[in-house]
Amino acid sequence: MGDTEFDLDAAVKLLERTPASLTALLEGLPDTLITATEGPDTWSPYDVMGHLIHGERTDWFPRARHILAGESRPFDKFDRTAQFTDSKGKSMTELLAEFASLRRDNIAALREMNLTREDLGRKGLHPELGEVTLEQLLATWVVHDLDHVAQIARVMAKAYTTAVGPWTAYLSILQDRTR
Amino acid sequence: MGDTEFDLDAAVKLLERTPASLTALLEGLPDTLITATEGPDTWSPYDVMGHLIHGERTDWFPRARHILAGESRPFDKFDRTAQFTDSKGKSMTELLAEFASLRRDNIAALREMNLTREDLGRKGLHPELGEVTLEQLLATWVVHDLDHVAQIARVMAKAYTTAVGPWTAYLSILQDRTR
Repeated sequence: MGDTEFDLDAAVKLLERTPASLTALLEGLPDTLITATEGPDTWSPYDVMGHLIHGERTDWFPRARHILAGESRPFDKFDRTAQFTDSKGKSMTELLAEFASLRRDNIAALREMNLTREDLGRKGLHPELGEVTLEQLLATWVVHDLDHVAQIARVMAKAYTTAVGPWTAYLSILQDRTR
Repeated sequence: MGDTEFDLDAAVKLLERTPASLTALLEGLPDTLITATEGPDTWSPYDVMGHLIHGERTDWFPRARHILAGESRPFDKFDRTAQFTDSKGKSMTELLAEFASLRRDNIAALREMNLTREDLGRKGLHPELGEVTLEQLLATWVVHDLDHVAQIARVMAKAYTTAVGPWTAYLSILQDRTR
């Protein structure tokens, strides 16, 4: 999908429905699945939800605004461990609701921007990657969502590694990367 | 998760909500995403949905019934390419509805079996893997669902490989395996 073919409407649709995908995947499951990890220093579905919430608050949409405001300073750095303090005491149900609410507000605000093709080409400064366009930011937001949906599916699948017995040979997800 | 800890209720919950996860991920997206693949001989989200439908009809639940009926012959082999003929002419919306309906019926029938711990230990003969238990079959059904949820997320993410620009370095899903 080259830059000229970027389909803003499809990207916004994907972003809009991530909360529903995650709620369908995670709501009402036992703690053994919610807090399962792939080993030391890997994230559980619970950790991932906190990370996604922090991204809604401080990363994706704020950076889009930053680009459109024509700021010349780089984006603020993103804190990849914020969820370990921010999520404390919250249930998975609360995290899912919080994420859904923040995402809804961000998508509503994004739609209100009525982005033009020209807007999509506007640039901001990433603290490590250098110049990036608004279109690249929005595409990355989508891929980041899908990456974490896949991660959550993988982490929960791996909780069944022993239970599947001889079928393990056919289930490539059980051999996949751990973060 | 050892065999003695297998949580049938959680496994059934996961199986039950897969249609909702997939509908949230896939409904109403443009064909460019629905039919995207990871290259020759890899499956699109559309192909995966047909494969899941064929599994509902001929694989998972029929095999569970086979085990409980005490059949000594091996399970019928599963056709991994059936979807290429079966799905012809169907829209993604139709596939999602068909999968949801078949899964609903299979889970209702599974619940009616009121499986005991003893039932979960009953054995069937896999045509290639040899002896497998009902518990291993059910765990594999769950992992198979999650594997395909992750695959669909990955395939759609890769459709944005060019669009993300320099962010590609941070998005490990874009470098993941292709099937």
